[in-house]
Amino acid sequence: MISKAKIKYLNALHQKKHRHKEYLFIAEGPKIVAEVLQQQKFQIKHLYASKLWIDKNTSIYNKYYSLTTLIGANELKKISSLKNPKEVLAVLEMPNKPQNLPEETDIALALENIQDPGNMGTIIRIADWFGIKTIFCSEGCVDIYNSKVIQASMGSFLRVAVHHGQLVDFFDAQKTIPVYGAVLGGDNLFKSTLKTPAIILIGNEGKGLSEAMQERINHRITIPKNGAAESLNAAVATAIICASFRQ
Amino acid sequence: MISKAKIKYLNALHQKKHRHKEYLFIAEGPKIVAEVLQQQKFQIKHLYASKLWIDKNTSIYNKYYSLTTLIGANELKKISSLKNPKEVLAVLEMPNKPQNLPEETDIALALENIQDPGNMGTIIRIADWFGIKTIFCSEGCVDIYNSKVIQASMGSFLRVAVHHGQLVDFFDAQKTIPVYGAVLGGDNLFKSTLKTPAIILIGNEGKGLSEAMQERINHRITIPKNGAAESLNAAVATAIICASFRQ
Repeated sequence: MISKAKIKYLNALHQKKHRHKEYLFIAEGPKIVAEVLQQQKFQIKHLYASKLWIDKNTSIYNKYYSLTTLIGANELKKISSLKNPKEVLAVLEMPNKPQNLPEETDIALALENIQDPGNMGTIIRIADWFGIKTIFCSEGCVDIYNSKVIQASMGSFLRVAVHHGQLVDFFDAQKTIPVYGAVLGGDNLFKSTLKTPAIILIGNEGKGLSEAMQERINHRITIPKNGAAESLNAAVATAIICASFRQ
Repeated sequence: MISKAKIKYLNALHQKKHRHKEYLFIAEGPKIVAEVLQQQKFQIKHLYASKLWIDKNTSIYNKYYSLTTLIGANELKKISSLKNPKEVLAVLEMPNKPQNLPEETDIALALENIQDPGNMGTIIRIADWFGIKTIFCSEGCVDIYNSKVIQASMGSFLRVAVHHGQLVDFFDAQKTIPVYGAVLGGDNLFKSTLKTPAIILIGNEGKGLSEAMQERINHRITIPKNGAAESLNAAVATAIICASFRQ
């Protein structure tokens, strides 16, 4: 049983400003919550769980029972951001992340104004697949603690460090790693010499990279087109470029 | 001004069974409608347009005025499937498509049970980018005339022929073109010899390819993983494989 005030408080966490005021965010569903609990990278603030989930996860429940509230399906619906809420919802603390690239970086992604949560989650998942551990996001990007981003990343947000900030500051802080920018009319990606360490810079879904960001590019690259589509989805372009680097 | 009965009729077209009963589907927004009108691959059954759209497109309106109804923003909202309806909505006739591969095919896609409309639309867009003109979909795939598929394809549905049917029949009808199937534990995609003509076979988002489809594969291919993500999004996997073929 949870109070109306608590339902209101939890729903506020579906909004960016409240998340960042409270330094908390929400992850939902048994699969993602199981990964969160296993990896222990995020502090658990609270779990809201159905009887079904508790019955299936007794050892976890025994460990976290003081942080767990048993709730019914109707209550879960009231606090969930999903159309079909799934058994369990975790409230997690946002980590404090260093704003620098780790020294052993081979590839990092820099994203300018990626606004679609599905795209952002998919890009995090692509990074995780290709062993890319760091993503820098401009302030115009969708909040990575948005529940749709968390869901679309399929647990990969646990393994990839995603930073938000001014991309200009990020590029100023590191000047030794070459920047490969995805642009129209650049060099053919498939014929380019791709060397690591590298930063792959991807622009907004509709507008591409801003002029300020284009100035930071060392290698202008383009995915060659055989057909007629005007553009590729930002996550798809990211995937093709990452694959070319790993090949 | 449109009647209640007409609103009900148009809303029914947002459902698969009514679309396929009437052989009609809906495309929305000025950009997609402009492409439809320009390409003339689909017969226009009717246009529902705002005053703004008509004022901006007088020559088109003069050509299609007998098929156009002027409607207000509130009416457009009632017949649209979009959260934010955009100026114009077209009712189009479904084409009759031949169920065979064109003779000059270099690459075709075969999709088994791709269920997410966003993924399907993105795959059509990827095909269009890489000059792939034919996609065969199993009967378990999302309807390609679903409005979310149409929107996600960004106009590429105009240039790529997408067929629905039994994939088994499709493979039985053509036995000369090698089938490259995306599986776990196959040959490293980046080290494989990829030759055209080819059929690229992609499975369901969660389950991958069924056993029946796996039996049809001539070349089992896998995108090598450097990191920890469990899987890649089906559209992302399609993009990486298509890019490898084109490179």
